[in-house]
Amino acid sequence: MNPIPARVAALREVMAAHHVDTYIVLSSDAHQSEYVATYWKGRAYISGFTGSAGTVVITADKAACWVDGRYFLQGEAQLAGTGIELMKIGEPGVPAWQDYVVENTPEKGVVGIDGRTLGSFQAIGLKQKLKAKELNLSCAEDLLNEVWTDRPQLPQDPIFDLPVAYAGESRVEKLTRLRAHMTEKKADYYLIASLESSAWLLNYRGHDIYATPVAYAFTLVGQDSCVLFIETAKVPEDMKALLQQDGVEVMPYDALADHLKSLKPSTIDLDKKLINQLLLESIPEGWKIVEEEIDAVIQMKALKNETEQANFRKAHIKDGAVMVRFLKWVKEHADQNMTECDAAAVLDQMRVDQENSLGISFTTIAGYGPNGAIVHYDPEQETCATIHPESFLLVDSGAQYLEGTTDITRTIACGPLTEEEKEAYTLVLKGHLALGHACFKEGATGTALDILARKPLWDRGLDYKHGTGHGVGYLLSVHEGPHNISYGVNRVKLEPGMIVSNEPGFYPTGKFGVRIENLVMVVPYTENEWGRFLRMETLTMCPYEREAIVKELLTAEEIHQIDAYHQEVYDKVSPLLDEETRAFLKDITRPL
Amino acid sequence: MNPIPARVAALREVMAAHHVDTYIVLSSDAHQSEYVATYWKGRAYISGFTGSAGTVVITADKAACWVDGRYFLQGEAQLAGTGIELMKIGEPGVPAWQDYVVENTPEKGVVGIDGRTLGSFQAIGLKQKLKAKELNLSCAEDLLNEVWTDRPQLPQDPIFDLPVAYAGESRVEKLTRLRAHMTEKKADYYLIASLESSAWLLNYRGHDIYATPVAYAFTLVGQDSCVLFIETAKVPEDMKALLQQDGVEVMPYDALADHLKSLKPSTIDLDKKLINQLLLESIPEGWKIVEEEIDAVIQMKALKNETEQANFRKAHIKDGAVMVRFLKWVKEHADQNMTECDAAAVLDQMRVDQENSLGISFTTIAGYGPNGAIVHYDPEQETCATIHPESFLLVDSGAQYLEGTTDITRTIACGPLTEEEKEAYTLVLKGHLALGHACFKEGATGTALDILARKPLWDRGLDYKHGTGHGVGYLLSVHEGPHNISYGVNRVKLEPGMIVSNEPGFYPTGKFGVRIENLVMVVPYTENEWGRFLRMETLTMCPYEREAIVKELLTAEEIHQIDAYHQEVYDKVSPLLDEETRAFLKDITRPL
Repeated sequence: MNPIPARVAALREVMAAHHVDTYIVLSSDAHQSEYVATYWKGRAYISGFTGSAGTVVITADKAACWVDGRYFLQGEAQLAGTGIELMKIGEPGVPAWQDYVVENTPEKGVVGIDGRTLGSFQAIGLKQKLKAKELNLSCAEDLLNEVWTDRPQLPQDPIFDLPVAYAGESRVEKLTRLRAHMTEKKADYYLIASLESSAWLLNYRGHDIYATPVAYAFTLVGQDSCVLFIETAKVPEDMKALLQQDGVEVMPYDALADHLKSLKPSTIDLDKKLINQLLLESIPEGWKIVEEEIDAVIQMKALKNETEQANFRKAHIKDGAVMVRFLKWVKEHADQNMTECDAAAVLDQMRVDQENSLGISFTTIAGYGPNGAIVHYDPEQETCATIHPESFLLVDSGAQYLEGTTDITRTIACGPLTEEEKEAYTLVLKGHLALGHACFKEGATGTALDILARKPLWDRGLDYKHGTGHGVGYLLSVHEGPHNISYGVNRVKLEPGMIVSNEPGFYPTGKFGVRIENLVMVVPYTENEWGRFLRMETLTMCPYEREAIVKELLTAEEIHQIDAYHQEVYDKVSPLLDEETRAFLKDITRPL
Repeated sequence: MNPIPARVAALREVMAAHHVDTYIVLSSDAHQSEYVATYWKGRAYISGFTGSAGTVVITADKAACWVDGRYFLQGEAQLAGTGIELMKIGEPGVPAWQDYVVENTPEKGVVGIDGRTLGSFQAIGLKQKLKAKELNLSCAEDLLNEVWTDRPQLPQDPIFDLPVAYAGESRVEKLTRLRAHMTEKKADYYLIASLESSAWLLNYRGHDIYATPVAYAFTLVGQDSCVLFIETAKVPEDMKALLQQDGVEVMPYDALADHLKSLKPSTIDLDKKLINQLLLESIPEGWKIVEEEIDAVIQMKALKNETEQANFRKAHIKDGAVMVRFLKWVKEHADQNMTECDAAAVLDQMRVDQENSLGISFTTIAGYGPNGAIVHYDPEQETCATIHPESFLLVDSGAQYLEGTTDITRTIACGPLTEEEKEAYTLVLKGHLALGHACFKEGATGTALDILARKPLWDRGLDYKHGTGHGVGYLLSVHEGPHNISYGVNRVKLEPGMIVSNEPGFYPTGKFGVRIENLVMVVPYTENEWGRFLRMETLTMCPYEREAIVKELLTAEEIHQIDAYHQEVYDKVSPLLDEETRAFLKDITRPL
């Protein structure tokens, strides 16, 4: 029997008892994280829909779940028999969930939500809409908790120290830099909600979120104090001693609001885009909030220091060796009836086996043939495709090493390719090369560079419907800001030490997908009377698919760029390989 | 005897009488225009400094004039003996004039300025600074007027109707579109201060500003009313009748503030970046101001309609014929000891002689040899250089025709060129070609395209220190927004019908200057499953300098682009030329 109707009924009873007319269940945690622990998967619990994104709205007599285009099929299957209506975002006639809330709540009614899961920035827009019917937003109570009897705990795994040999800068030095910034901004306190920011600032890592080595915590930095709010059981004694020695006190995860009340009214620097609504409302009256366009810690974290840069280079050589072994394995097994899941499992295990590995950095995407054209494809055991000795296998994957985070996509020829496949690959490669070899003036943003990657496609009236590049953390989230590469507006300038992905693609629906992704780092190029110039250094060390390259579509310069890169890959990666794999690498990196 | 000290002394007396401690004289008119009528040239009157930009601050015992890098020499010469200190903007130790005002005015003192010349947006920053010493800003009185006894009148030339054959859309249709926008924005009134916006909306042109065919006026649009505030003598009876028939009332230029007072409190849409401070202060209490990120009329005006587009194409063929005759004249006179001014005069006269010509669209820049490297060079009779049969003459010029406004730069070989000159020209040309042939996705801004023009330079650590492109009006200002091409952030998307200049350059100081400028128009390219794509159509019809092209630096595609463009220029322009000039054009447009 489907358990969902009973859960929804139970929630409606709790709603009635609390005089809540409409209840909203989001997919977020209290930190606006990209991935969340199971404790926060309340939307899946109440609806049965397990996709990575979705929103549920429940009223006394209606219930609906909003899912985006990636999940239309999955939503249909999982919501069947639940009594919850499927809302396909973007389809004609489908309202935004905020409008649905307004329409289906009685005038002057109460709209409830767990305020921890509502971003304070998002709350502004929601409140604006609720005004139309004078609806009240109640953020303080987590009604779902009353019905979710077997709710998982918050994760309890211990955090661990990230030594300066990896972090490159002590937590004391980082705190000193942050405090100087606070002084400049006239802020007494700096409040951090982002899990990655806390982990970066205080040089620890954790195990709370799948593929992202962070821990649930808040950090409050004062001029003479620093408190890490975290389930105290998760901080081992030696780690607590290290923190204490560096002036960092540990308090329970849920003690932040009370702690703020105990302080005298002050000025606090925070980023409303990262703070949840309940936390924002917990800042006592009389406090003054300082806001910045770009969060200071996120900006600091994005500029990798020299140790991090050197480690990143090492991580990518190690990861390159994994990828070369994997390429060889794919080529040897393309006619062995392996599935997409088999390929992903082999690659993931190779990564886990590496020295200093903390596992993969996100769920491996392995899309064969037409599945390669589904940008966020996630192969499932039961349904995944079998690979044949033809067409492309697109593999987007990465690892978490103590030396840094990797993220690479290669589009692998499983056998003979069609002319259409080769041409698509070559056009994508041309854009990828142009961005990877970009030289640019200091002050340029990712917006100014994006066209380099898209030009070969745009010239032909083709495109890929995703950004060209995202920032990458150091043993943190594989997606981090504040910079990116996209033709949409981003005010953040590219600066030396920033890492960004270079991943153009092309996805003819129902046919195949091509994406080629390296991580690149912004480094100084030259400085003269015309200004200071920057360029990209490619970190990723893995050959392109030579079988897919149409040489006639390349310029002499592009051919030289490929040959030079392949030589560099061979020189750096071959010492890590056994003889047979080295011979394989030698062959696939020979001049075009 | 230098008349300036007496003028400053007289102003100080008036200041004392009005209890004003410090008086500021800006270079603006009441409309934030790029160029101003002599009535508004008070800064030149009080200081003797005649540059196009500059600010004077006068206290009881001090006086100073701020000038930018273009005018350091001129400022030094013109301010000598005036008692006014020269302030070189950007030099070490030189304060911003706003800080100087604060430092040199007594606590709680009064700072005076003609509020008509102070942008209301600029006023926000100034007022913020004045707070430090509790200074009061007095905007209401134009003290300079009391000492400037021979001040020129506001211009009195009549305005004239621009028929729909040129404007492409009647004023009634434009008003209808604007009113629909006002309804959407819930605005009862729309206030226009920009001279170009009034002229565009009401389909008239004037003669008040050098090279820009506008007239001093404000326009107030209501849902059932439209008032043009202009010196009534400037509106001929037949023009008044045309306006009246289309529901446009004419009132005196200075009647706007009183008129606003006579209306019942309403909601008014305006752009604070375009409104002066006195006007802003004249909006009565109880009125609500609606502001938009991009002014609606400026956005409408930027999208040329089909008639304007067709006319622009005609204007550029006519202007191309002028340019070809001029190129021939330069080549024939390069060894005749002509000066930069001679060349500019010849070209200007050729433009004035054209059918439907309203003269030039800005002061012609003709810079020979090292003068070409001075980006805003303006040759003067007494000091301009003589041209020799070698190196480059850079000529940036344009015309105002009833069919539209032109703006073109050509860098002309006056004789044999050095390898360095040719290489520089070819690199600039490569960037110019790349931008001129850009294909891009709808939604891209000028920021996303800029790198196409700069890439050949950036790749070598070179650059030009100006934007790549500016919008151009239709028989209006040669510089208009809201779009541009620049790697700095601009949120305005490029849309079909927008015209923008494509003018990369390179300026090795003390040697020569290269700039190549065409006007291009954004037009549809293709639409398919990947989205809607746009491209650039080149409007300007004039050959490049084939003597300066290093063919080995060009790709086959670039050579084809040049040959195709030259063929198009010949086909379109040659019918307008006499036989000899046609032969000249044939020769300089032959395939590379």
